[in-house]
Amino acid sequence: MTIPQTMQALVQLHDGYASTQTGPQIDDLTPFLRYATISVPEVGKGQALIKVDLAAVNPSDIHFIKGEYGQPRKKGVPAGFEGVGEVVAGDTPLLGHRVSFFATASGAWSEFALTDVTGLVPCRPDLSEVAAASQLVNPLSAIAMFDLVKESRAESFVLNAAGSQLGKYLIGLGKDNGVAPIAIVRREEQVEMLKDLGAAKVIVSTAPDALEEAKTTFRNLSPAVLLDAVGDQFAADLFFAMPRHATWVNYGKLATDAPKLTELGQLIFMNKRIEGFWLTRWMKQVGPERVRAAFVEIQSRFTEGKWTPDVTDIVPLADAMARLPAALAARDGKVFIDPRK
Amino acid sequence: MTIPQTMQALVQLHDGYASTQTGPQIDDLTPFLRYATISVPEVGKGQALIKVDLAAVNPSDIHFIKGEYGQPRKKGVPAGFEGVGEVVAGDTPLLGHRVSFFATASGAWSEFALTDVTGLVPCRPDLSEVAAASQLVNPLSAIAMFDLVKESRAESFVLNAAGSQLGKYLIGLGKDNGVAPIAIVRREEQVEMLKDLGAAKVIVSTAPDALEEAKTTFRNLSPAVLLDAVGDQFAADLFFAMPRHATWVNYGKLATDAPKLTELGQLIFMNKRIEGFWLTRWMKQVGPERVRAAFVEIQSRFTEGKWTPDVTDIVPLADAMARLPAALAARDGKVFIDPRK
Repeated sequence: MTIPQTMQALVQLHDGYASTQTGPQIDDLTPFLRYATISVPEVGKGQALIKVDLAAVNPSDIHFIKGEYGQPRKKGVPAGFEGVGEVVAGDTPLLGHRVSFFATASGAWSEFALTDVTGLVPCRPDLSEVAAASQLVNPLSAIAMFDLVKESRAESFVLNAAGSQLGKYLIGLGKDNGVAPIAIVRREEQVEMLKDLGAAKVIVSTAPDALEEAKTTFRNLSPAVLLDAVGDQFAADLFFAMPRHATWVNYGKLATDAPKLTELGQLIFMNKRIEGFWLTRWMKQVGPERVRAAFVEIQSRFTEGKWTPDVTDIVPLADAMARLPAALAARDGKVFIDPRK
Repeated sequence: MTIPQTMQALVQLHDGYASTQTGPQIDDLTPFLRYATISVPEVGKGQALIKVDLAAVNPSDIHFIKGEYGQPRKKGVPAGFEGVGEVVAGDTPLLGHRVSFFATASGAWSEFALTDVTGLVPCRPDLSEVAAASQLVNPLSAIAMFDLVKESRAESFVLNAAGSQLGKYLIGLGKDNGVAPIAIVRREEQVEMLKDLGAAKVIVSTAPDALEEAKTTFRNLSPAVLLDAVGDQFAADLFFAMPRHATWVNYGKLATDAPKLTELGQLIFMNKRIEGFWLTRWMKQVGPERVRAAFVEIQSRFTEGKWTPDVTDIVPLADAMARLPAALAARDGKVFIDPRK
């Protein structure tokens, strides 16, 4: 194809980090992004230009544009970590192919994205567009963190924010691998849906007896890993209610309070520990072979119907500034941005 | 020797655990212990009876008698984890020898103690009695935790409660192994003494600019491990001020407040983690060879003068109920109990 000179994109207004910790909620994009016409980025050595078909919106994207993520913002550069599209330029055998990508150089909320050729993920033809646009952040995180669960050799694991897309994928992995998912949610109406997906137990964190219910469940099922996307006091309370050798793996900060370590002695006497999980680091640690194997599994799970992306809304790029906050406020599904419209 | 029927001992008044978290301070022993005449314990299979020469008093002993330690109390059984004495009964080639011991079956604050033969540590003849009576808990913890420091491959490490006996041993290890100790203390008057021992930097935690000073020091010296005996908010603040990949190793709870995880995102993006250290678990993990090698090093360090136990007081067993709290309140040294007097 002929690559145009300019493109439409959601462009970042700030550099670097903010000192705020406001979480992944957002009411208004205008303090952080601008819908603009900018130059299509030039392809450097080892890079690929992708004509974006569809881009995902993840909590990490919102953390990032707010300056609250682990990478610095770049003023004038499009936002958006993840999407699917066609490779239209770059020194790669995937030129002309449909690929999923993590945008390292110029973001996915744009007509064209720029990234390293090493991170391109070819897509099976039978992989749906929404699955292809969102197969990196959530599915790969689910596979990676489920490795931690498997390494624990426990018969169960605990996850909060279990009604999230990532939560649902983790429940599916637990069910299919015979490791009982103990799911923590905030709303009663999520309970039946998660049981249908394979949760062995669903605990509503806002119920008055939630912690007692968790303790009883933990005694019966002996979980060893807590996968925590919330980072609040209830996550800490769950951790301290878990049996010996438990690991609290924090991978997100939906809450804005700072949890207290009320039972620090458990780290000494019960061999408990607290860690973080970051997909970017995991990919470096395990290396490309493990990551490739994970994408084979991910694409199989999607095409076999073991995983299904929940689509809340697909917002045209031109409407995203106005419509994205309301679309994200709708719960329990993913929002996508379509730059073709 | 002829073993008598009865002995004097400081006997525990309670079973199991308490629900309190009051730390290792103590004003009065009478709620927890009684000075009493009881039967000398019978030696079972795999056990050794030791005529105690001198017993140590460690913070973990006080935690234990209060029911705040990781092992349950046993009503009617003498307290005291650690001491030195002569093996007077038991199926062991160390019969008749002077040994250091960790009392697993009947405590060291007594004329006779009972323990597993596998845990007996023979003492070099030139090892002083106070060193022999206290070579397990503090020296072995220092060696074990310094292994974590060495594994980190950093050029420095951070320790708080640095004026404690264990803190001084850790500073000595850092100095002799070329790993700069960054020492945190609460009182200005400890600064010079710790610098003389080999601390590269001493920070007084009660000074108004303490955290800023720590940040500057950490930027220059890049420590990777925080050895924390306090478990307070300042320990958490130090941890969050440390560079990427830092590990917070908590091994004691001198403070009674619950620290807040104010920068949980650092666990995700900076690969930081929080763990506990317990000597009992370490000994099982590393096995008897490593432990034996550690005691060779410990006894060499004592006899060569690289380590010196600071003796605050040696209290006769018969006076301990009355005199121990005041002796422990005196700072910066160890207190011992002598059952021969």
